[in-house]
Amino acid sequence: MTGSGSVIEKVAFKRRSVRKFRSTRFDVGILMECIDIAKEAPSGSNKQPWHFVIVTDESLKKALRETCEKGEKRFYSHVRGELAEWLKSRNLDWKKDFLTRAPYIIAVFGEKKAPYSRESVWIAVGYLLLALEERGIASLTYTPPNRDEVAGLFNAVDDFRLEVLIPVGYEEGYKIKEPRKKLDEILSFNHFFTREGKN
Amino acid sequence: MTGSGSVIEKVAFKRRSVRKFRSTRFDVGILMECIDIAKEAPSGSNKQPWHFVIVTDESLKKALRETCEKGEKRFYSHVRGELAEWLKSRNLDWKKDFLTRAPYIIAVFGEKKAPYSRESVWIAVGYLLLALEERGIASLTYTPPNRDEVAGLFNAVDDFRLEVLIPVGYEEGYKIKEPRKKLDEILSFNHFFTREGKN
Repeated sequence: MTGSGSVIEKVAFKRRSVRKFRSTRFDVGILMECIDIAKEAPSGSNKQPWHFVIVTDESLKKALRETCEKGEKRFYSHVRGELAEWLKSRNLDWKKDFLTRAPYIIAVFGEKKAPYSRESVWIAVGYLLLALEERGIASLTYTPPNRDEVAGLFNAVDDFRLEVLIPVGYEEGYKIKEPRKKLDEILSFNHFFTREGKN
Repeated sequence: MTGSGSVIEKVAFKRRSVRKFRSTRFDVGILMECIDIAKEAPSGSNKQPWHFVIVTDESLKKALRETCEKGEKRFYSHVRGELAEWLKSRNLDWKKDFLTRAPYIIAVFGEKKAPYSRESVWIAVGYLLLALEERGIASLTYTPPNRDEVAGLFNAVDDFRLEVLIPVGYEEGYKIKEPRKKLDEILSFNHFFTREGKN
């Protein structure tokens, strides 16, 4: 199944992080189906330390946006250097209108005390992104700078941590994919090396 | 593309964490292809903070196993409670023979200072596991308790952290998949809840 025959290759290469969504709603069953796939991910001691919340409620989306933007304003007032330049080059700022524009948001929580909780949850996020893309649903992994504050809006239990908000929907317009490094820049055999010859 | 038409669904449901590998080698190009897919994952500020090392060398595999087992012996001498019981119920102990039995190991490193480095790397791991499974390659996400010590065997640069070792190969025998929670145990709408009614 090399090359063109691989669905996962096709889907992974096609997917881009999208920030502009059409507000068009669609059958929320599609999202349930994708989460049903994500839950098949492996996890530390098979603890399956994840909880997913599908946000459909407009007033919750509004509250999420307000709280996230409050955190973003604080973040942007401090950000400096390379990251500040990167954000500017992408026209990114504290405004997160995708949180109200996207028809749905999937909030992903991780159980704090589970072994390798963060690692496990993000494998599941990887599964989720591919499942969404396979169904033509664009997504963004958005990590608010003030995740604990945002978690409060869900009345999440204390032993779970908000890992990410994933706005989902159909893309508005078309965005070029951010370029990826070449394979030989990120892959070596038997020894770690970087192209820069650090090693 | 609901239900049976989804390749990603099929692959995700089929995959199990495998600990018994046939030693049969195969074209390492298949692994390069899977890593080429994994690198398409999104990452914080598109930093692509990952480095993959394919281990083909038998003496390195042996050294990895020895070092990991040293760490595991220390871990197992301290483990108690629920985790100890789970490990025992799965016949898991400090021996990690899959590290020498599997024909190849993929070591995945993350750049420590990159934004959301761990999160990004594990999305890529999610992509990688599905790509491997799609090609009939079994895998295990094995996180040694002494990752820094193990990283030393690769002469990894200091600004990268070993995240996981993934032994890969054809499965020996057949292992039943660990059961997953039901969808309604891990999914809710607009509010966080757990089935146990914690909230």
